[in-house]
Amino acid sequence: MSLLAERLYSEIVRIPLIDPHTHIDASDPASRSLADILGYHYYTELAHSTGMDRADMDPSLEPRERVRRLCLRLPALANTVQHSWLLEISRLLLDLPLQRIDGTNWEALWEAAQKKMSGPGWPEEVLRRSNIEKVFLTNRFDDPLEGFDTGRFIPCLRCDDLVFRLHDPDVAGRLRKTTGIQVENLTTLRRALEAVVSRFRARGAKALALSLPPEFSPEPESEGSAGAALSKALSGRRANSQDRERLARHVLWVLADLAQETGLPFDLMIGVSRHVYESGVPQGTDLFDRRTSLYQYRALFNAFPRVLFPVSVLAHDQNPELVAYAWIFPNVVAMGHWWYSNIPAFIAQDARSRLQAVPAAKQIGYYSDMYKLEFGLPKFNMYRKVLAQVLAEDFVQGRGFGEEEAIALARTVLRDNVERIYKV
Amino acid sequence: MSLLAERLYSEIVRIPLIDPHTHIDASDPASRSLADILGYHYYTELAHSTGMDRADMDPSLEPRERVRRLCLRLPALANTVQHSWLLEISRLLLDLPLQRIDGTNWEALWEAAQKKMSGPGWPEEVLRRSNIEKVFLTNRFDDPLEGFDTGRFIPCLRCDDLVFRLHDPDVAGRLRKTTGIQVENLTTLRRALEAVVSRFRARGAKALALSLPPEFSPEPESEGSAGAALSKALSGRRANSQDRERLARHVLWVLADLAQETGLPFDLMIGVSRHVYESGVPQGTDLFDRRTSLYQYRALFNAFPRVLFPVSVLAHDQNPELVAYAWIFPNVVAMGHWWYSNIPAFIAQDARSRLQAVPAAKQIGYYSDMYKLEFGLPKFNMYRKVLAQVLAEDFVQGRGFGEEEAIALARTVLRDNVERIYKV
Amino acid sequence: MSLLAERLYSEIVRIPLIDPHTHIDASDPASRSLADILGYHYYTELAHSTGMDRADMDPSLEPRERVRRLCLRLPALANTVQHSWLLEISRLLLDLPLQRIDGTNWEALWEAAQKKMSGPGWPEEVLRRSNIEKVFLTNRFDDPLEGFDTGRFIPCLRCDDLVFRLHDPDVAGRLRKTTGIQVENLTTLRRALEAVVSRFRARGAKALALSLPPEFSPEPESEGSAGAALSKALSGRRANSQDRERLARHVLWVLADLAQETGLPFDLMIGVSRHVYESGVPQGTDLFDRRTSLYQYRALFNAFPRVLFPVSVLAHDQNPELVAYAWIFPNVVAMGHWWYSNIPAFIAQDARSRLQAVPAAKQIGYYSDMYKLEFGLPKFNMYRKVLAQVLAEDFVQGRGFGEEEAIALARTVLRDNVERIYKV
Repeated sequence: MSLLAERLYSEIVRIPLIDPHTHIDASDPASRSLADILGYHYYTELAHSTGMDRADMDPSLEPRERVRRLCLRLPALANTVQHSWLLEISRLLLDLPLQRIDGTNWEALWEAAQKKMSGPGWPEEVLRRSNIEKVFLTNRFDDPLEGFDTGRFIPCLRCDDLVFRLHDPDVAGRLRKTTGIQVENLTTLRRALEAVVSRFRARGAKALALSLPPEFSPEPESEGSAGAALSKALSGRRANSQDRERLARHVLWVLADLAQETGLPFDLMIGVSRHVYESGVPQGTDLFDRRTSLYQYRALFNAFPRVLFPVSVLAHDQNPELVAYAWIFPNVVAMGHWWYSNIPAFIAQDARSRLQAVPAAKQIGYYSDMYKLEFGLPKFNMYRKVLAQVLAEDFVQGRGFGEEEAIALARTVLRDNVERIYKV
Repeated sequence: MSLLAERLYSEIVRIPLIDPHTHIDASDPASRSLADILGYHYYTELAHSTGMDRADMDPSLEPRERVRRLCLRLPALANTVQHSWLLEISRLLLDLPLQRIDGTNWEALWEAAQKKMSGPGWPEEVLRRSNIEKVFLTNRFDDPLEGFDTGRFIPCLRCDDLVFRLHDPDVAGRLRKTTGIQVENLTTLRRALEAVVSRFRARGAKALALSLPPEFSPEPESEGSAGAALSKALSGRRANSQDRERLARHVLWVLADLAQETGLPFDLMIGVSRHVYESGVPQGTDLFDRRTSLYQYRALFNAFPRVLFPVSVLAHDQNPELVAYAWIFPNVVAMGHWWYSNIPAFIAQDARSRLQAVPAAKQIGYYSDMYKLEFGLPKFNMYRKVLAQVLAEDFVQGRGFGEEEAIALARTVLRDNVERIYKV
Repeated sequence: MSLLAERLYSEIVRIPLIDPHTHIDASDPASRSLADILGYHYYTELAHSTGMDRADMDPSLEPRERVRRLCLRLPALANTVQHSWLLEISRLLLDLPLQRIDGTNWEALWEAAQKKMSGPGWPEEVLRRSNIEKVFLTNRFDDPLEGFDTGRFIPCLRCDDLVFRLHDPDVAGRLRKTTGIQVENLTTLRRALEAVVSRFRARGAKALALSLPPEFSPEPESEGSAGAALSKALSGRRANSQDRERLARHVLWVLADLAQETGLPFDLMIGVSRHVYESGVPQGTDLFDRRTSLYQYRALFNAFPRVLFPVSVLAHDQNPELVAYAWIFPNVVAMGHWWYSNIPAFIAQDARSRLQAVPAAKQIGYYSDMYKLEFGLPKFNMYRKVLAQVLAEDFVQGRGFGEEEAIALARTVLRDNVERIYKV
C-alpha cells in the first residue's frame, strides 16, 4: 500500500460500523473456543478440498482434537485469504501475533483463545476491538426473536423457507404454529405472511432477506395459477417443480408488497445453486451457475418502486450488471461482496467500478456474512484495505479528491448508507 | 499517474481526433446553455436514480430553473466519473475551475456557460479546444442530411428502425416517403434499402450503424419466410414476434450485402435491452441481459467477409469474446467502450487486453457517443488517461517499447484506424 | 516491475519445469527453421486477421519465402503479446536481440535460426535454456507411442476423437485397428477403451485430456439409450446430433471410470467451439460461446470423486467459476491459462484470484500448449512475470509473506503440483 492509501486506511478503520448482514446467533454471538473459529465453513471446506476427511472434523470429536487436526491441515491453505483472517484474529483479537499456524504452535493458539474467550465480556470485547456497533442477524421466520438486545442485534427476516419451501409440510406447519393462521388459500397465506412480517417489525427487524438460485425469474403469477399451486402443495399432493416455482413467485410478490407497505428493504442475494457438491462439508456444498442475469428481475424492480432492493451477486462476472442496474433503477442498491466474490482480486475490481459509476448513496460497501463475531474484524479489514487503495488511486490521485472527501465517501458507503437505508 | 504515463498522456492529447460515433445534431451541435449539458441522460438518470423526481427535470421548466434543481442534486453524484466530466467541461471549456458543483456555485457556472455558449463561434471553439477535427453523426434513414458541412460532420446511417421496426406502419411510411418506393415484396424492399444507402453515400455517409438486443441472432432467413413475414407486416395484420425477427434478419442481411457492395463499414453495437426500467427518464430506461455471445454472429461474419464490422459490446464481461473474435475474424474490429462499459475500471481491463491480443489495425480505441460537442473532450480524456497508463505499464515498462513507439500505437488506435477503416 | 518483483522473478525462473500440456511431436520436437516458428497458428491467424492472404502462407511455398512474407507482415502484430514471444525466442534462444522484426532484418533472423536449429543438439539445447525437464505430449488414441524417450516426453491420451467422433467410421476403424477389438455393443466398447488406456499406461502415459464445446453437459447416459445410439452409429445409419451426444456422454463416463480405476488425472479443457470462422487458417478457426458453466459438470465431478480433474476454461469471464469449483470440489484443480485467456491482462486477474482463494495444492500454474519447443520459454516467462508481480504485491507486500515463502508458493503451483498430481 502507498503511504497515501495507508493514511486513508488508518482513518477508515475509525469509522464505527453497522454490519448489515451476518449469520450471528444473538444468544451465542462469539466463539467459545478455537473450535468455533476453525469450524467456520471456509476452513472446513478448504481443508476438505485439499483432502482432509470429513471424519476429522466431525462435531462429535472433542473440540481440542478437532482444532488440532484442522491446524495440521492449515499450511495447505496458507496462501488463501481466508487463512489470513485467522492470522489477523490471532494478532488483533487474541494478542498473539503469528506468521503461520501449524503443528508447532497450534496449542499456543488454542490456549490464547481459551483464555480470551472464557471471559464473560468477550463478545463485547470483540465488538469493541472491531469497532462494530450493531450487527444484523438472519432469522428464520419462526425465530422467537427473544433473549437478546435488539439495540445491538438487529433482526432480519430470512425469507428462503417461505418463498422456496412452503410446499414442505414441515415449513407449512411452522408457519401455522408461529402465526396461528391455518393457510388454506391465497388470502390466508397473505394473512400469515403479514403476521410474520408484523411480528418481526414489532421486534425491531429492519430488513427482509432472500437468497435466490440463478435460474429463478421473479415475475407476477396469476391468482389462478398461484392458488392452484398452493392448493396442490397444501393438500399433500406432490407439487411439481412448476407448481413450486409458481408458488415461489407468488410468495415473493406478496413479501415484496409487504416490504413496500412497511418500508422494509428487501435484500436479494442472487445466484446460489444449492447442493452442487453432494459430499461437501456443511455449508460447503453450494456453488453457482454463472448463466444468470439481473434482467430476470426487471418485473420485480418495476413493480415495487418504493421497495429498496440491496442486491448481492455471487458471480464476480455479474458485477457489471449490478453496476448498471444500481445506476439506473432508483430502488436497486449494490450491496457488498458475497461469498465466492469476497476475495480481494474480485472486490478491487467490483468496488472500483461501483465507486466510479453508482451514486454513493446507492451502495452498501460491505457486510461480513459472519457466523461468529470474531470474523467481522478481518473481513472488514480486507474490504477496507481495498477501499483505501481504490480511493487513493482513483479518487485522490486520479481525480483530485481531497483526503477528507475520500474518507467521507468511505463513510457513506460503509456506515451512513446502512443507517439510512435500513433506518437503524 | 506515473511521470512516464503523464509524459505519454501529454503527447496523446495532441493527436487530432475523428470521433467515429456520436449523436450530435449537426444543425445544433453544441450546448446553448448549461441546461443542455445537464440534460444529458447520464445526469438525469443518475439524479433520478438517487431519488430526484422526473417533474424536477421536465423540459417545460425554464432552463435556468432546471439547472438549479439538477445542480442541487449533483453532490449526490460527485463520486461518479460522469460528474468528473462536468468539472472538466467547466475547467477546460468554460475556464471555470471548480472542485465541486452545488447550491453555492451553480449560478457562477450557469453564467460562465451563458457567456461562452452565446458566442457565435462556440461550436468551433469547443472542437478546437477538444482537438476534434471531424465528428460522425447518427442519422435516421429519412434524415434530409442537409444544412451542415459534411467535411466536419460525417453522416452515418442508423439502421435500427429499418431492421427492427419495419412492421410499424409509421416506419414503412417514412421509408416510402424518403425513397418514393412502395415496398410490396422483397424485391421492392431491397430497392428501397438501396435507395436509402445510395442517398446516404451521395451525402458523404461513411458507415452503417445498428444496435442489437442481446437475444438476437443474425442468420440468413429463407426468401419464403422473409417474404411471408414482410407481407404480414405490410398488410396491417399484426406481425408476431417470430415474424418480426424473420423480417429483422432479412433486412439486416440485405443491409450487410449493401455494405459489402458499397464498401461501407457496418458498426454493430451489441447487447442493449430497451425499456427495462419503465419509469426511467428519457434515454435512461435501457439496460442489458449479459447472457449473450458473439457466437450468435458467426453466420453474419462468415457471410460477409468484405464488410468490416466494428463491434461494441455493452457488457464488460463480454469483452474477452470481443478480443478473441477481433483476433480471429479479419472483418471484426474491436470498437470503443460503450455506455455501461464506459468507465475507467472497465476501460482499463478492456483496453489492456485488446492492446495485448488484437492487432493494432483491428481496433478503434474510442468514440464519445456524445449528444453535445462539449462531452467529447472529457470523455476522450478519460480514455486517453487509461490508454497512457496501459502504454506506460505494459508496453514501455513491461515490453521495452520506446515512448515514440507507444505514442505511435496510440495514434493508430485513436486516429489512423478511423481514417482508414471509414475511408475519411 | 518493482525491484521486489524482479527479485522474485529471478528466483522463479530457476525452478525447473515440467510442462503438463503441449502439442509437441516427440519425434520432431523443435523447429527446423524459422518457418516452423512462424507457422505457429498464432502468427498465421493474426497475420490473416490483418488481411494477409492464405496463399502467402501456403505450406507448398518454400520455407524461406513463407518466412519472408510473414516477416513483412509482423509489424502489424507488433503490439501483440504473441509478437513479444518471437523477440524473446530471438534474444534468448537464437542469441539475436532484436527490437522489431521486419523487411530490414528478417534475413538475419532466418540465418540465425538456420545456424542454431541445424545443429543436432538443438532440441536439448532449447530445453536446457528453457529450464524444462519434461514435456507432456497430446497423443491420438492410436498413436504408436514409440521412438522417443518417455523419460523426457510423457504421453497423454487425447480423448476428443473417442468421445465426440466415434460415429465416424474412420474413427471406429482406427479404434478397431489399434485395439484388435471389434466394437459391437457397450461391452466391447468398454473393452476397447480399456485396451487403449492400458496401452497408454504401459507406455508411461500420465493423463487423459479432452477439450469440450461450451454447450456440452456431461451426465450419465442410461445403458439403453447409449446402446441404441452406439448401434445406430456403428450400423452406418446416420447418427443424429442427439445420438452423438448420448454416445459422447457414455464414452466420457467410461473414460472417467477408467481414469478412476487407473488413477490417471483427466484434463478437461472447457469451452471451445470448433470451426466458427470457416475461412480461417489451420488451427485458426475455433472460438467460443461464453454462455457455459461449470455447473454443467456437477454430475461428473460428483460421480468420480477419486479422479483428479485439472480444468482449463477458455473464456476469461468463466474464471470466477473455476476458482469457486476448485475451492469446493476436492477433485477439481484449476489449470493454466488457455489459448484466448493466455494473455497477461487475463492471466493477472485469473492467477491473482486463484492464489487468493484456491488452496495451493489445487492449482497447476501454467502449461505452454506449445507445438514446438521454442515456445516454452517465452510463454512460461510471460506467466512467471505475472506470477512474480502478484506474489510481490499481494503476498509479500500485502500479506507479509517472506520472499522465500512466496517463492515456495511459486514452486508449488509451477512444479511440485505437476509432479504430484500426475505422479511424474
